[in-house]
Amino acid sequence: MIHFALLGCGRIGRVHADSIDVHPRAELAWVYDPIESAASEVAERYGTTIAPVVDVAIDDPSVDAVVIASATPTHVDLLSRAVRAGKAVLCEKPIDLELARVDRCWTDIAALNPMVMLGFNRRFDPSFREVRDRVAAGGIGRLEQLTIVSRDPAPASRDYLAASGGLFRDMTIHDFDLARFFLGEVAEVYAMGSNLVADYIAELGDIDGAVVVMRGANGVLCQITNSRRSVFGYDQRLEAFGSAGMLSVGNQHPTSVRSSNATHTEAAPEYLNFFLDRYTPAYRAELDHLITAIEQGSQPSPGFADGREALALADAALESLQTGRTVPLGSPARRETEV
Amino acid sequence: MIHFALLGCGRIGRVHADSIDVHPRAELAWVYDPIESAASEVAERYGTTIAPVVDVAIDDPSVDAVVIASATPTHVDLLSRAVRAGKAVLCEKPIDLELARVDRCWTDIAALNPMVMLGFNRRFDPSFREVRDRVAAGGIGRLEQLTIVSRDPAPASRDYLAASGGLFRDMTIHDFDLARFFLGEVAEVYAMGSNLVADYIAELGDIDGAVVVMRGANGVLCQITNSRRSVFGYDQRLEAFGSAGMLSVGNQHPTSVRSSNATHTEAAPEYLNFFLDRYTPAYRAELDHLITAIEQGSQPSPGFADGREALALADAALESLQTGRTVPLGSPARRETEV
Amino acid sequence: MIHFALLGCGRIGRVHADSIDVHPRAELAWVYDPIESAASEVAERYGTTIAPVVDVAIDDPSVDAVVIASATPTHVDLLSRAVRAGKAVLCEKPIDLELARVDRCWTDIAALNPMVMLGFNRRFDPSFREVRDRVAAGGIGRLEQLTIVSRDPAPASRDYLAASGGLFRDMTIHDFDLARFFLGEVAEVYAMGSNLVADYIAELGDIDGAVVVMRGANGVLCQITNSRRSVFGYDQRLEAFGSAGMLSVGNQHPTSVRSSNATHTEAAPEYLNFFLDRYTPAYRAELDHLITAIEQGSQPSPGFADGREALALADAALESLQTGRTVPLGSPARRETEV
Amino acid sequence: MIHFALLGCGRIGRVHADSIDVHPRAELAWVYDPIESAASEVAERYGTTIAPVVDVAIDDPSVDAVVIASATPTHVDLLSRAVRAGKAVLCEKPIDLELARVDRCWTDIAALNPMVMLGFNRRFDPSFREVRDRVAAGGIGRLEQLTIVSRDPAPASRDYLAASGGLFRDMTIHDFDLARFFLGEVAEVYAMGSNLVADYIAELGDIDGAVVVMRGANGVLCQITNSRRSVFGYDQRLEAFGSAGMLSVGNQHPTSVRSSNATHTEAAPEYLNFFLDRYTPAYRAELDHLITAIEQGSQPSPGFADGREALALADAALESLQTGRTVPLGSPARRETEV
Repeated sequence: MIHFALLGCGRIGRVHADSIDVHPRAELAWVYDPIESAASEVAERYGTTIAPVVDVAIDDPSVDAVVIASATPTHVDLLSRAVRAGKAVLCEKPIDLELARVDRCWTDIAALNPMVMLGFNRRFDPSFREVRDRVAAGGIGRLEQLTIVSRDPAPASRDYLAASGGLFRDMTIHDFDLARFFLGEVAEVYAMGSNLVADYIAELGDIDGAVVVMRGANGVLCQITNSRRSVFGYDQRLEAFGSAGMLSVGNQHPTSVRSSNATHTEAAPEYLNFFLDRYTPAYRAELDHLITAIEQGSQPSPGFADGREALALADAALESLQTGRTVPLGSPARRETEV
Repeated sequence: MIHFALLGCGRIGRVHADSIDVHPRAELAWVYDPIESAASEVAERYGTTIAPVVDVAIDDPSVDAVVIASATPTHVDLLSRAVRAGKAVLCEKPIDLELARVDRCWTDIAALNPMVMLGFNRRFDPSFREVRDRVAAGGIGRLEQLTIVSRDPAPASRDYLAASGGLFRDMTIHDFDLARFFLGEVAEVYAMGSNLVADYIAELGDIDGAVVVMRGANGVLCQITNSRRSVFGYDQRLEAFGSAGMLSVGNQHPTSVRSSNATHTEAAPEYLNFFLDRYTPAYRAELDHLITAIEQGSQPSPGFADGREALALADAALESLQTGRTVPLGSPARRETEV
Repeated sequence: MIHFALLGCGRIGRVHADSIDVHPRAELAWVYDPIESAASEVAERYGTTIAPVVDVAIDDPSVDAVVIASATPTHVDLLSRAVRAGKAVLCEKPIDLELARVDRCWTDIAALNPMVMLGFNRRFDPSFREVRDRVAAGGIGRLEQLTIVSRDPAPASRDYLAASGGLFRDMTIHDFDLARFFLGEVAEVYAMGSNLVADYIAELGDIDGAVVVMRGANGVLCQITNSRRSVFGYDQRLEAFGSAGMLSVGNQHPTSVRSSNATHTEAAPEYLNFFLDRYTPAYRAELDHLITAIEQGSQPSPGFADGREALALADAALESLQTGRTVPLGSPARRETEV
Repeated sequence: MIHFALLGCGRIGRVHADSIDVHPRAELAWVYDPIESAASEVAERYGTTIAPVVDVAIDDPSVDAVVIASATPTHVDLLSRAVRAGKAVLCEKPIDLELARVDRCWTDIAALNPMVMLGFNRRFDPSFREVRDRVAAGGIGRLEQLTIVSRDPAPASRDYLAASGGLFRDMTIHDFDLARFFLGEVAEVYAMGSNLVADYIAELGDIDGAVVVMRGANGVLCQITNSRRSVFGYDQRLEAFGSAGMLSVGNQHPTSVRSSNATHTEAAPEYLNFFLDRYTPAYRAELDHLITAIEQGSQPSPGFADGREALALADAALESLQTGRTVPLGSPARRETEV
């Protein structure tokens, strides 16, 4: 039985609490949240204990793993403490909004050979994973073009967005990681953004829609389309196009009902509305992957470096947005500057 | 160049006129219709001549083939005359509403070894034909179950239906022939009908919906669903289910546009509205088949006997409707009674 | 918290054990199975106790409800005992293979006003239920035609089938109940069967494919297609056709991946393979319905009478198969004969 | 009746000959091709006359319109001659490979107020046009993102590609025009290309795959994906995403057959293989539009300026490819340099 401490009882923290609850080999030992009502709600629902301070949870010798689902600025500190306490860590994205801070964090903990998993849940979505496995097995010949569509149902609040690090670090970061899942390293990035959805996003200096183009080190062209609003629901699609075929992932519906009437035919119901619905199986598989890694003493994947690289891609996209130029990744010079 | 005389310039006559017009090796020599305005409209549109009486068209030595698209009661007489004049014939379904009359017609002309094609256009629909060819080639192993859905957009007028011979002889007859295209001979038939669409149909003693079940001589179970009204358009589908797979034909849309909004996703436009739209390619392929048969001196298919058998199935279905029993087909006794 | 005793730890028993396990307000108190290894496997997996004899489980005062998932011939006896012990019952279909025995069972327990739910899980499938609710709400105008396709991936073993009561009582019984979910009472039934799948089924005197036609007391025509084998997976579809539109339920896939290559386009993966996968949400919703009924003191639905009527439809279909005639249901005479 | 002279009897010339042939108000008066066998083949098939030199066709007073389907370098000269002879012109894309030459051509003929239509057939595809009309009518609220996928089944020969002007001027030019059909003017362009399909394309200094990003003057983000090879057939799709919904155009199949077997379900047949099949209705509607314009004395659309702007976009994309920068369009400075 793997014992977990959950730090952060907001929306995503509850997703993890639920995954732990239904997993036959996991137990939720502690929860912590600076907002007491959030902590107690989760504690009650899952029959577990509230930690008065995070260290009580982190330092409990019976705890095997710490899930970091707290506010982004707290991630690196909690991650370091959990690693130093000898715990496995599942850290929500992004590790931090500042790449330099991420790199310093790694410098601090690298020698401990930490077991850190990043919460890029989409790698565990059964559809994306099936496509990736079939691509890896040569099912479409050589992969040549990857297309990702990722649109949220509706923009988050101004407060949330103000602290989010912007579209690329908050939202596209999932797509950057999904791209890396197929491409491996990325050679160069370009981004064009737009403000068409909500004025308050522009006022924050952020964009609310974007098209990102990347070239993988393997030559694959990748294209990402983002929007903060999609009135027909969470729009999460992918196409892997290759020399011998194409595999695509479509959106998913709560039922298989189709409707025909005098105005249209074969209409499907709304899509699974948001990540809580669409990615429930992914979150559960993600947790299962970590549990298995802990049990077997292997490194989980995606790991810290994947979190770092997705953030680096977000930064590069931002630079491209500002300069209108293709931004190369991975050059030693660039890394030096950044780290 | 094959020269045609067209007898009957109503809705279906115009379909044939159009097919003849666009065929590179066909020419419309004569048109005839007792309603002069109908004849002149077609004559003008396709630049051809109106026959003052049908014999002028039928007996013209330059005419190779006669298309019979006139009112049903005139079919057998025109068919006999055209055959005796040595012409190939494309006769619209049904040959006649009375099976005995159909059989007498055949007795009259059989010795002439006539070239008669029946207008069962669905055999030439590219989708149905592809399924039939793949089934025949073993693409689904052994055919076990055949399902046909056939629903008209809206019921015809009371006057039309009063003279139609009823649902089975007027509408299901196409499905009976399509079933025979897959099953060969039919061993037994059962039918259940309903009156849910329009009162005036019940007043005519006719039904406006039906389910028909048949067993082929080859053991295949076949099921047909009919309705005189389908508000979402012409509903024309088929499923061939076999020991190694299934081939299905779905409805067809005028464009490949799909629409998603706040109330539904992936909605398709209305279906191709009626037989003029859905079966245009079928009608053209049907005519091309006849032309090729004439050119090559071969017998076109479906032929007179197919028209006879589809009508016999309609009669058997009607008997089943009245008795609530399975009706066997093809027994010598039955044939004797009928012929 | 509702405490359950589970009688029968075979395939379907385990489905219920799992539903109880994940339900937040249910607890599995006892399991029983004459095959000890089956009982102990379930007991270990869900951390519960094996009852040495059924009465220990049934009579335990802390037990609220009994799930009967044992062999069919044991159902009526266990049902009577559980009812007399004052327990709510979830009984798997069929109540019994013999209608007279079912009716005697009811005579025995009716005065106790028992809370009995029948395990017709499909009523709780989110897709079927959505269609039924939208139909009931007038979403397709007046319901006119109902089409059900139900094909198992592969036939069960000879031993299983020999004790199954035949296709109609074992397999179609689910479709009969689903039809009643939409039609209410059924006025008449017709059935045509076939033996195309496996010789050993014919040797048992059973059929392995069928088409059933029914007319609801409300005039709706209903058509069911069954096969014991579908190489492309569990084929579970429904179409509700009405005066103002159609709602259809398609098959369901484990992922939303589609594949295109040089030989085909947009190919979907296999369907959810069998009832354990396709109907997992339905089984859970079914159990939740019972729990809520117990908590609220209301009658669950479908109930005993629904189990009785589905069996009566199976018997009527069998009679039709043997006589080749439409069989009327629900006449007093018929009921007298049967009860 | 509108009389046409067809200059160029290659693949695309034959498409136009066919459209003229089936149009009820068009007649093909002359054909010309420097390759005599090509000219005589078309002349024979459509029963028309070969012009010994182009001027015979262009200067024939009975000719109303000239279709320019000859080699690209001949376009501007033939266009000028036809315009000076007072004819309407349907000119295939591109007008020329050199923007300066296009502008000089316009300078030469502008004063004649010529009736010139550009052969951007996709504007007349029923699906694309329906989407554009529904977008224009507010069907998806405000248009925010446009996604175009355009992949040819297989790359053309080395010889063809060597003279083609490169991917952007030869292939993407259709997508540039389709984008302008939705966006109006384009503000800026970015392109990333790849060489993954065929070595001989790289040897020509050309690319064989690309992703292009554009921003419309109206703020809409547009994204185009191209490849010279798609093993599953001609891949021609579009998505118009807006504040209130999305309209998408999928690929089209020759039949509506779907296949399920032990390895996959619902597989569709290959797509309509190439532009001759997919865009037949578009080519016919395009010609009809020109004929109607001639009859009504109105300007056809798309016109000369649309041909010019699509080429300018191709040039800008090429500049972006070479510089790795976003290239602004439409600035006076840029236009001065170019014109």
